[in-house]
Amino acid sequence: MRTGIATVCLSGTLKEKMQACAIAGFDGIEIFEQDLVTSPLSPEDVRKMAADLGLGLDLYQPFRDFDSVSEDILQENLRRADAKFKLMSRLGMDTILVCTNVGTATIDDDSLRAEQLSRLAELAGNHGVKVAYEALAWGKYVNDYEHAHRLVDTVDHPNLGTCLDSFHILSRDWDTAPIEAIKPEKIFFVQVADAPKLSMDVLSWSRHYRVFPGEGQFELAKFMGHVARAGYSGPVSLEVFNDVFRQSDVERTAVDAMRSLIWLEEQSAKWLDAKAASLAAEGVSGDSPANAAGRRRYPMELATLPKVAEPAGFNFAEVKTDEPAQLETLLGQLGFEFDGRHRTKDVQLWSMGHARVIINEQAPSHSEPAIAALGFDVDSPVIASARAQQLKAPVVPRKVQADEEVFQGIAAPDSTEIFLCQGSPDGTAAWTSEFRQTHEFGEGLEHL
Amino acid sequence: MRTGIATVCLSGTLKEKMQACAIAGFDGIEIFEQDLVTSPLSPEDVRKMAADLGLGLDLYQPFRDFDSVSEDILQENLRRADAKFKLMSRLGMDTILVCTNVGTATIDDDSLRAEQLSRLAELAGNHGVKVAYEALAWGKYVNDYEHAHRLVDTVDHPNLGTCLDSFHILSRDWDTAPIEAIKPEKIFFVQVADAPKLSMDVLSWSRHYRVFPGEGQFELAKFMGHVARAGYSGPVSLEVFNDVFRQSDVERTAVDAMRSLIWLEEQSAKWLDAKAASLAAEGVSGDSPANAAGRRRYPMELATLPKVAEPAGFNFAEVKTDEPAQLETLLGQLGFEFDGRHRTKDVQLWSMGHARVIINEQAPSHSEPAIAALGFDVDSPVIASARAQQLKAPVVPRKVQADEEVFQGIAAPDSTEIFLCQGSPDGTAAWTSEFRQTHEFGEGLEHL
Repeated sequence: MRTGIATVCLSGTLKEKMQACAIAGFDGIEIFEQDLVTSPLSPEDVRKMAADLGLGLDLYQPFRDFDSVSEDILQENLRRADAKFKLMSRLGMDTILVCTNVGTATIDDDSLRAEQLSRLAELAGNHGVKVAYEALAWGKYVNDYEHAHRLVDTVDHPNLGTCLDSFHILSRDWDTAPIEAIKPEKIFFVQVADAPKLSMDVLSWSRHYRVFPGEGQFELAKFMGHVARAGYSGPVSLEVFNDVFRQSDVERTAVDAMRSLIWLEEQSAKWLDAKAASLAAEGVSGDSPANAAGRRRYPMELATLPKVAEPAGFNFAEVKTDEPAQLETLLGQLGFEFDGRHRTKDVQLWSMGHARVIINEQAPSHSEPAIAALGFDVDSPVIASARAQQLKAPVVPRKVQADEEVFQGIAAPDSTEIFLCQGSPDGTAAWTSEFRQTHEFGEGLEHL
Repeated sequence: MRTGIATVCLSGTLKEKMQACAIAGFDGIEIFEQDLVTSPLSPEDVRKMAADLGLGLDLYQPFRDFDSVSEDILQENLRRADAKFKLMSRLGMDTILVCTNVGTATIDDDSLRAEQLSRLAELAGNHGVKVAYEALAWGKYVNDYEHAHRLVDTVDHPNLGTCLDSFHILSRDWDTAPIEAIKPEKIFFVQVADAPKLSMDVLSWSRHYRVFPGEGQFELAKFMGHVARAGYSGPVSLEVFNDVFRQSDVERTAVDAMRSLIWLEEQSAKWLDAKAASLAAEGVSGDSPANAAGRRRYPMELATLPKVAEPAGFNFAEVKTDEPAQLETLLGQLGFEFDGRHRTKDVQLWSMGHARVIINEQAPSHSEPAIAALGFDVDSPVIASARAQQLKAPVVPRKVQADEEVFQGIAAPDSTEIFLCQGSPDGTAAWTSEFRQTHEFGEGLEHL
């Protein structure tokens, strides 16, 4: 799947946003006009920077309030469009988002709209660019993707196609199945956003409460499944207006965003496989049961990750404190026993049955004791770690000596270190043999 | 690009190979028959394991010596094929590689071959599987991909298509441009391998000297460019017979293999962009100059990475030794001066002008002094590090204190640590301020 993100999702300057997108591994970006306007970079600078960063400039957006207007306003709108198309040529961009009219529409007439869109498409064709027409959920006359696409169909111009935005479709509860009937070459762009289900006006909901896929309640896998079954294989790009993300660290947010698309790919692949299986069970021809991967019939390539079962249990918890004596007392009172100090690291092991607590004394002075790391029992630490890394979890550096157990460690979003440990049927952990009751440290603690 | 690798490239059991492929991030694999035969896993086990690992089972291979035979041998070959197709159904696989006949071909007649392939395609259709027909470079009568594809064209059956293998094509110096004329739906599979240019019989060359893309001398970007321009967007899979890789650590080789495909994607994208630019310059219609990314017109999605210029110079070299006195003497004799010890780490800094050597005393006893790390000056360490990580270089863990410079570190293939440092116009390095002339260590060394 070609991954993308609109610059409007991120904080910082255009340059910072673009760098963060490249680092996070996006294939392309949408240039939000305001980001370009406020940037000291020229369009040519942006074009070169994108090429150097390996980022496609996949969509210029937004172009508002074009259609359903009187002829004099249309003339003005075509002049505006002409200027944008020239700018896009300097950027080396070939697709622009045109939203259905909210503010200036006065004439509700599909044949007039088609004629006006046809003139826009013709102008776009002269500039070698394409117009992706999107129904806003709050468009004055056109607020339904099927309606917008009927207009595209009527115009039937190679430079006019549809843009599908999951928010505008799912916020209105439009049925997504008819997406499959759209010819793939007429879907010019796909934008995805999730959202919590809220009862509020849809404009505010859209502008402030969009979230990354998986963080909200929309049926995005189904939406994407229909898009894939339509035969679309172009960019799938995040357009998430969210006040928090716009103020968060740009590199971290870009990685979170990328992770949400990888998750969405996996969910969409699952939905497609389930759909293929159910069609095969119904005996619908064309979905051969011999082909386990029903999604492979569609041009959209969806990455899938190793599956990992829920952890079977906790392997250990590591607490950092600069005052270990207090914690030792507490653990002793709770019935934990001191098992020794690590032979190379400055940590203690305490246990009660198979509950294991490591005390790490390397905390900054005067900090509260806090969980620094959690160990989980999993079937295959190396596979679980591979999945986490493919989901962009940062690897935790942990020095080990040659004969010590190598833990697969990754950082959770709150920076707690997560270690993926080999579970054992009897609940024991091999690494505990690295701890020893030593006289210089252990004495006096053993009898707490 | 959907990435794949044949299990025959790797060492170990089928289970180990599959796990390594999942960890390296491949989308799918080719099951080499011998790996399945020698595995204790049942076909159903393999199918489930692949699904759990998120790996597609994209090609079953090889099926040899089918066509150009007498009717009695053909009957036997169809029985063999029937058994394979049943096995593929248990594996949930839908595509099999059939190579042109080397050993049993006795009749050189294209119309007979077409008739025999047609019967195979019909049988495959009954089982819901597809036959990808590949010209071996040493096929007895058919050893040229265009010849093989003419047969596919003649048969014109939905269950028969072409498999293109870069080795079989480039080892014979066949022109790759005609690939563009093949209908994309008739290219069932693409295999890639590189090779050094050797003067030897092509069978031995193929079986022992194939290497991963970028390690040999074939024009693979051009080959892939033609494949992309044909409209193909299916798996691109490594089939590299190499005696060394078959004995190397499986996880490491799988990562090296994946890296070579990522590199190939980038090279192919560059080739396509250059091709589009040259066609646009010639005024060939259809390659619009407005569209900077000429490759975007083709369904194959090619990932591109941030570009990074060659390092501007060395920032430092770090030498590990358990006998620092010898090294100190040597550096002193060479004209280096002692600049101090690090305030938190057990290392010394020596310099001569902007040449900086760090002595790290934490080497195992009796080991020879050796380069443990190299620092390079780059424009943007964070971008260079992102590129390295996208190319699967492992991140080097390095603990830093809050106010110390964070180095972007990755491990080179020989495990030397590579640090990407911010170059400065005057050749200085900010981190040197973390070193101090302390009396307890420094004295006595300053006047060496």
